[in-house]
Amino acid sequence: MEIAVIGAGAMGGAIAKRLVENGVSVLTYLEGRSAVTIERAKRAGMQPADLDAVAGAGLILSIVPPATAIAVAEQTAAAIRRRGLKTTFMDCNAISPQTMKQVAEIFGSDCGTVLDGSIIGGPPKAGQKGPKLYVCGDAGDSSAVLAEHGLQVRRIDGPIGAASALKMCYAGINKGVTGLGTAMLLAAIRSGADAALKRELQESLPDLDAKLASAIPDMYPKAYRWVAEMEEISEFLGEDDPAALIFKGMAGLYRKMAEDREHGGLLAEQLDKLNNGGR
Amino acid sequence: MEIAVIGAGAMGGAIAKRLVENGVSVLTYLEGRSAVTIERAKRAGMQPADLDAVAGAGLILSIVPPATAIAVAEQTAAAIRRRGLKTTFMDCNAISPQTMKQVAEIFGSDCGTVLDGSIIGGPPKAGQKGPKLYVCGDAGDSSAVLAEHGLQVRRIDGPIGAASALKMCYAGINKGVTGLGTAMLLAAIRSGADAALKRELQESLPDLDAKLASAIPDMYPKAYRWVAEMEEISEFLGEDDPAALIFKGMAGLYRKMAEDREHGGLLAEQLDKLNNGGR
Repeated sequence: MEIAVIGAGAMGGAIAKRLVENGVSVLTYLEGRSAVTIERAKRAGMQPADLDAVAGAGLILSIVPPATAIAVAEQTAAAIRRRGLKTTFMDCNAISPQTMKQVAEIFGSDCGTVLDGSIIGGPPKAGQKGPKLYVCGDAGDSSAVLAEHGLQVRRIDGPIGAASALKMCYAGINKGVTGLGTAMLLAAIRSGADAALKRELQESLPDLDAKLASAIPDMYPKAYRWVAEMEEISEFLGEDDPAALIFKGMAGLYRKMAEDREHGGLLAEQLDKLNNGGR
Repeated sequence: MEIAVIGAGAMGGAIAKRLVENGVSVLTYLEGRSAVTIERAKRAGMQPADLDAVAGAGLILSIVPPATAIAVAEQTAAAIRRRGLKTTFMDCNAISPQTMKQVAEIFGSDCGTVLDGSIIGGPPKAGQKGPKLYVCGDAGDSSAVLAEHGLQVRRIDGPIGAASALKMCYAGINKGVTGLGTAMLLAAIRSGADAALKRELQESLPDLDAKLASAIPDMYPKAYRWVAEMEEISEFLGEDDPAALIFKGMAGLYRKMAEDREHGGLLAEQLDKLNNGGR
């Protein structure tokens, strides 16, 4: 069995590794990638290949940053057309259903089958079940091979877009809560209400306090990526939904946290001090 | 001991009742109030009085909707000036530190002492400790009388504004989480991803799922009030903070839920159905 995984980032690399460990031959396309990515792909047991070889795999997974999803779809569709043989392309990215529909249109029907996928949970680690791969639009059960080779796959009954919508909604809640906590703890620090707020959260919302205490520090290195993800959620909700504005604000907040990290992490330091009871 | 409580809403009435049960004589000002409010004040054991009598109480609490806080401060300050005797005014409302500073300026130093208070938690019920009254700027310990008569009082070291900031930050997290859940569950319902989202939340964020399942239905009748509270949080954060936009979006979302309630509650019904596993 040959599967191609485009994208050898933390998630793509770990998913490929899991497939390789389960006997799958995993191709990937590495042209123009950084040395770190190439090394990660190697450690995962991925085999570097050109796009034409990738297009020949029986199943192609796209696991890339949301902003890259369309370009990857275009490159891959062109390679499939050059080769002239239909295959199955599964977009697993954190993109809105609208963007997912664009991806499907890029392939058209002459390239084969397009599946709407999304990933919820962190990259798979040794000894753990790993994240869930949601998939919809899979009438031909093309994703079964993933479940048979070590991945958790969950089917959604629904048209193309439902798996992407699920990811948007889940991320909106999960990363939204982290954003709310970050914003309000920073405001409390500025206002001299931080110690009282921390104590009140511990007393009256202990589960949420515990979640924030771990989720906020985990966010710092990812904040730059979350900017685009929050913008994608805002677009997903659409201008008619007042909640779209919430995620424009979230994008701005994560941009601020990404900039803070670039400039020495002063805000992160204040948040950590509060979370660790250092004040 | 005589205390005045301006505002005989659900919170003001219940706090007055707790004080009355602990032997305090509680005055209130009811001119122009609805029959429901007058009845609630009566049941709480509050004594109707004119503003001049209210101004003569040793401690005056303002417990009103945020949009009314300034008007109450102006009326009360005028009555204190007419009477010519200093007293202590404690604003307990969900207002921003900026608005709290305005309140303090309205009284000036000739009216006596102004305390910045805020209330976290629901109205006190029989047999329960009740909400926490946070207070700052209380060098003279004027709030001690409240703690001695059945209320939970917690002092914050900090300038006028810190208790208000605490309330803004806490409400921003607590009501913000409810808003995020509401927005994303509605988006999932629109997109056919609702059942999958509910199951994923139950599995990977069970505490948050449980909180949303109770907090969302509790919100419907309060949504109209939360609009102003979200706008106040947005102002508190200020235009320089990208998170201010988050709360403009929250205000819009709660406006939508308030309008839904006025028009038959279709959205609320969809949310309830999902939460109760009815799909």
